Amino acid sequence: MVNVGIVGATGYAGEELIKILLRHPGVKITYLSAKIDKPIPISEIFGYLKGRLEIICELPDYKRMASLCELLFMALPHTVSMEMVPYLLKENLKIIDLSADYRLRDIKNYEKFYNVKHKSPQIIKEAVYGLPELYREKIKKAKLIANPGCYPTAGILGILPALIADLIETDSIIIDAKSGFTGAGRKPDLNNIFSEVNENLKAYKVNIHQHMPEIEEQLSRFSGKKIKINFVPHLIPLNRGILETIYLKKKDKKLEVKEIISVYKRFYKKEPFIRIYEEKKFPQIKDVLYTNFCDLGFYTKAGEDLLIVIVAIDNLLKGASGQAVQNFNIMYGFNERESLL
Amino acid sequence: MVNVGIVGATGYAGEELIKILLRHPGVKITYLSAKIDKPIPISEIFGYLKGRLEIICELPDYKRMASLCELLFMALPHTVSMEMVPYLLKENLKIIDLSADYRLRDIKNYEKFYNVKHKSPQIIKEAVYGLPELYREKIKKAKLIANPGCYPTAGILGILPALIADLIETDSIIIDAKSGFTGAGRKPDLNNIFSEVNENLKAYKVNIHQHMPEIEEQLSRFSGKKIKINFVPHLIPLNRGILETIYLKKKDKKLEVKEIISVYKRFYKKEPFIRIYEEKKFPQIKDVLYTNFCDLGFYTKAGEDLLIVIVAIDNLLKGASGQAVQNFNIMYGFNERESLL
Amino acid sequence: MVNVGIVGATGYAGEELIKILLRHPGVKITYLSAKIDKPIPISEIFGYLKGRLEIICELPDYKRMASLCELLFMALPHTVSMEMVPYLLKENLKIIDLSADYRLRDIKNYEKFYNVKHKSPQIIKEAVYGLPELYREKIKKAKLIANPGCYPTAGILGILPALIADLIETDSIIIDAKSGFTGAGRKPDLNNIFSEVNENLKAYKVNIHQHMPEIEEQLSRFSGKKIKINFVPHLIPLNRGILETIYLKKKDKKLEVKEIISVYKRFYKKEPFIRIYEEKKFPQIKDVLYTNFCDLGFYTKAGEDLLIVIVAIDNLLKGASGQAVQNFNIMYGFNERESLL
Amino acid sequence: MVNVGIVGATGYAGEELIKILLRHPGVKITYLSAKIDKPIPISEIFGYLKGRLEIICELPDYKRMASLCELLFMALPHTVSMEMVPYLLKENLKIIDLSADYRLRDIKNYEKFYNVKHKSPQIIKEAVYGLPELYREKIKKAKLIANPGCYPTAGILGILPALIADLIETDSIIIDAKSGFTGAGRKPDLNNIFSEVNENLKAYKVNIHQHMPEIEEQLSRFSGKKIKINFVPHLIPLNRGILETIYLKKKDKKLEVKEIISVYKRFYKKEPFIRIYEEKKFPQIKDVLYTNFCDLGFYTKAGEDLLIVIVAIDNLLKGASGQAVQNFNIMYGFNERESLL
Repeated sequence: MVNVGIVGATGYAGEELIKILLRHPGVKITYLSAKIDKPIPISEIFGYLKGRLEIICELPDYKRMASLCELLFMALPHTVSMEMVPYLLKENLKIIDLSADYRLRDIKNYEKFYNVKHKSPQIIKEAVYGLPELYREKIKKAKLIANPGCYPTAGILGILPALIADLIETDSIIIDAKSGFTGAGRKPDLNNIFSEVNENLKAYKVNIHQHMPEIEEQLSRFSGKKIKINFVPHLIPLNRGILETIYLKKKDKKLEVKEIISVYKRFYKKEPFIRIYEEKKFPQIKDVLYTNFCDLGFYTKAGEDLLIVIVAIDNLLKGASGQAVQNFNIMYGFNERESLL
Repeated sequence: MVNVGIVGATGYAGEELIKILLRHPGVKITYLSAKIDKPIPISEIFGYLKGRLEIICELPDYKRMASLCELLFMALPHTVSMEMVPYLLKENLKIIDLSADYRLRDIKNYEKFYNVKHKSPQIIKEAVYGLPELYREKIKKAKLIANPGCYPTAGILGILPALIADLIETDSIIIDAKSGFTGAGRKPDLNNIFSEVNENLKAYKVNIHQHMPEIEEQLSRFSGKKIKINFVPHLIPLNRGILETIYLKKKDKKLEVKEIISVYKRFYKKEPFIRIYEEKKFPQIKDVLYTNFCDLGFYTKAGEDLLIVIVAIDNLLKGASGQAVQNFNIMYGFNERESLL
Repeated sequence: MVNVGIVGATGYAGEELIKILLRHPGVKITYLSAKIDKPIPISEIFGYLKGRLEIICELPDYKRMASLCELLFMALPHTVSMEMVPYLLKENLKIIDLSADYRLRDIKNYEKFYNVKHKSPQIIKEAVYGLPELYREKIKKAKLIANPGCYPTAGILGILPALIADLIETDSIIIDAKSGFTGAGRKPDLNNIFSEVNENLKAYKVNIHQHMPEIEEQLSRFSGKKIKINFVPHLIPLNRGILETIYLKKKDKKLEVKEIISVYKRFYKKEPFIRIYEEKKFPQIKDVLYTNFCDLGFYTKAGEDLLIVIVAIDNLLKGASGQAVQNFNIMYGFNERESLL
Repeated sequence: MVNVGIVGATGYAGEELIKILLRHPGVKITYLSAKIDKPIPISEIFGYLKGRLEIICELPDYKRMASLCELLFMALPHTVSMEMVPYLLKENLKIIDLSADYRLRDIKNYEKFYNVKHKSPQIIKEAVYGLPELYREKIKKAKLIANPGCYPTAGILGILPALIADLIETDSIIIDAKSGFTGAGRKPDLNNIFSEVNENLKAYKVNIHQHMPEIEEQLSRFSGKKIKINFVPHLIPLNRGILETIYLKKKDKKLEVKEIISVYKRFYKKEPFIRIYEEKKFPQIKDVLYTNFCDLGFYTKAGEDLLIVIVAIDNLLKGASGQAVQNFNIMYGFNERESLL
């Protein structure tokens, strides 16, 4: 039994972690905290937890975290966890950080895109980027996991096999991303209220979103080339799910879709959460909703430049808390699918 | 050409007023204000107004209102207009106030349900309750209109004919109301964000909603009896529309639905915005959406106590801004339907 | 390991059964069938089952059911299972029937409300009404479970404790029910398409819905009195969930809400899926979504006639498939909560 | 007063035509027909028309059309109007056809993408493609208007100015289109029902949609080059609106966004329904909802290959019925904005 805590328990990712971990036979939730006015039973915040998890959600307190937990899931807004992590690591806690604070090795990019000075840059190198499909071996031994962003999870998994196999041009990658609204977090804001979002659809942060350098850094590390992408995220009036329609340019026009599919199948052949679709079939958000799967479908034709990859994930699971538990399972030797099906 | 201003132009009711009045051949919008940080073109707030209304939305200023307008629509949160109205009336402006501040003659009820001391109680008597179906003659000569609430509009129009005709018991009136989300106003609040409201449904302010005394006061004034109602509003994940399912107890069990329907038809026979459905047909929200109509359907059977009245309106039109313009049309002698079809 | 089959696997209830049973450690799904054109892997119908359940969904065949299963979940449209059940019982299968075919002891009511002649009336008496809160002991030994309807589950659980304790008048029960759209089943119909349902809200089958006699029969059996109810269901534009706002008349005006709450708490004190809210708190659909809970909140005041009970369930879980598995767990001696949390 | 008829009055486009034309001071609706079982008052089909349009919706009858109307709006499924139009033109009716039957000059493309043999190919040349921004002069004198498709309207208006100005490569045009659900028509189908569409998001007809050749043909006619596009449409769970995110490759990397914007402003400088956004601002669907506007926003940077154009329209207005009335206004010399604001 691993005693775990969740810091930031009242956000969407924190809430999802509670739901998953309650089902996990090897986990005991021993600590919850959030930025709240005063301590309050978590079952008063999330009514459906009544009778299932009777524990107080506290105000964050390093000492309580260290004394009650062996591992912490940190589901905090960006720029908050970089203050807490150095202390917690010293206390020998393991940490799975769902924020962006340790995802980028290139501090300049972090400081530019998050518009803040990094407060514990010395630790960045210790962090393992928690995408199991790329870093499973390192995750096994990690003390600090930088859990990937939702858009980057889908984007990297959708592009990388073609990039590694040298099938695509590296200068014309376009990701047209569509996200459900929980991706924006549980934040009061006039633009977020129901009647502003419902029956609307918009692009935002056009080619300036903070997830771009994360995708570029991972793609570059693996390909050995400097990769620049184009990225246009859109907000869709639904609660959960990300669909990315990725436009790539094939190096060899003659490549057929079957060949592409077999490259991806080979790349992911042992992966428990990747599903490759046959030609002419494409994933929908509802195929992955409430699951930790990442589904991939492909379009191209011999004679055409364009390769289209369509990727679907649940932004709160494979895009956040599900992936965090997948990383936890790897770190502690559980079946990687434990509590994720 | 009547020069009109809208105070509170950036809320849902204010926005809807702009849309209607732009189509009105007898109106010129000469003034807009709202509680904003600094003056800004209204077309930057509502992008779709680009090229259609190029006027600055200002910070509220009594003198500008008085010098630029002949009539003001005040679409402000409750408790704000009661400070402004005395001054504006003195300046000879006509006012259609969409807030609750002058709707209740019983100040004690106002102060109890809105939890604030009334600041201009002396003016309440001057205000005409702006429900044309009841007060058309008074509206013609009014200087201050207290435009009815959305729930009361549907509730009063649904109950009054049966009450006046003495067909129902007065001690067991139940209104089960369902409202779209614009009814909650354009306000940032954690409970209002899209992913909290979408795919959810809840009752709120169960039998304590501030619209109860408004309905009770109007029903009592007309029936000459002290009427108490039961009222349970529910929030529905859609943008606009109110459906009220009203449960009444017939005095005479033998009454058939046809008789009820003919009573309502007679009561509303000259009304331009009331539509009575034949038996076994019931209004849906989409029958009234984007219209100023109030639709009514009925269920009862000879031998049964219960009479069910189902009422549908668009909360932003017949429930707010449409009704305000209907009142305006009456005050200025326009065709009552002008710009409302 | 119990070998189970699902007949009607492609409807919403069947799909939900698959999801739950895949997590159940004591169950093996050995058979799936549906009214389809030709046999097809279930993972082609529900993409998210890829890699999780690789079994063919067949056309219904009694012999295959009998040879492959020990128990069948029948999730068929009403009037279909009454043809199949007699044969299957003879083959010694246990059956949990999610349709209405064996729910009503009063055949006349069945034939009137479902507008069809019953084809196996002799079996109705053998069926146990599968509401564990009322019939747990009978369920343990049952061979045929008539799994309750979604509206009746919420309605009966909301009314019965007050009725048994003789706190309410029996002639003025009103249920104002609101249901998500999966309640309408997976059926192509012009009225069911997205753009007709979205941003709309309507009452339907006003006081003539086929779930009325089911509620009345169960309430009558327990109270020993002939109970008539009034029932107005409404369709809400969300996928899942039922909220029922129940209006009851207290026999004793002096009763306070605390007393009501304690009656309900006592009645349900050992129930694993009933949650009683404290005064002034009311359940929302999202408190029960994706759970098997039934949540209850209460309003009344000393001096008022009216008692309001608000009930929330997930129509596909406690209102259908979750309750079916709860019954299964009881029949086979599993923990009643197994796979339902 | 022009006597007009609407054939296909019960679909989404037909319904929208009724709404607009009811407001039009120069139009009398004298005929409505649809594929229905028997004649029925249109106000029984669309409840909100009660008291506003009391006319029978008939079964289609050429003679009645010819005797009652001067102009017909045909809002029929593709492949139906090509049977009716030859007869009607002979009877001297003017026709605005909202289907695809006369949009493509290249019959082979029509027959390939609509999978049917064209039945009146001789008439195609007579038809004027009803995009006023391109063909206003021809529309003035037209007898048969082929009203553009919804996706093509947005796509052509978004791409053409850059193409004409020779700013972009012609071999790498990508349109990532997102459409509300009314775009799919009012058709019963299992995939169209609310609970299948709500909370889902998917791409469909990936690079094989029938609107591709329409866009390509118009772009080619104007640029004098053979243009091929890539086109991926997505279905979004909202009722109305199209957003197209268009990815183009600049010929000259140095071009700045300001230069692009000024090219588009010049191209559309006299257009009553085109709005060009300043840099860093992008249209949202709600900016154009319930309007006939087409809004355009732009992203590029000096040094980058990519030019992104984001286009928003209401698919039922500028994408169908609004544009049809715009064409009507041009044909009959009304103010082009009449009844469209």
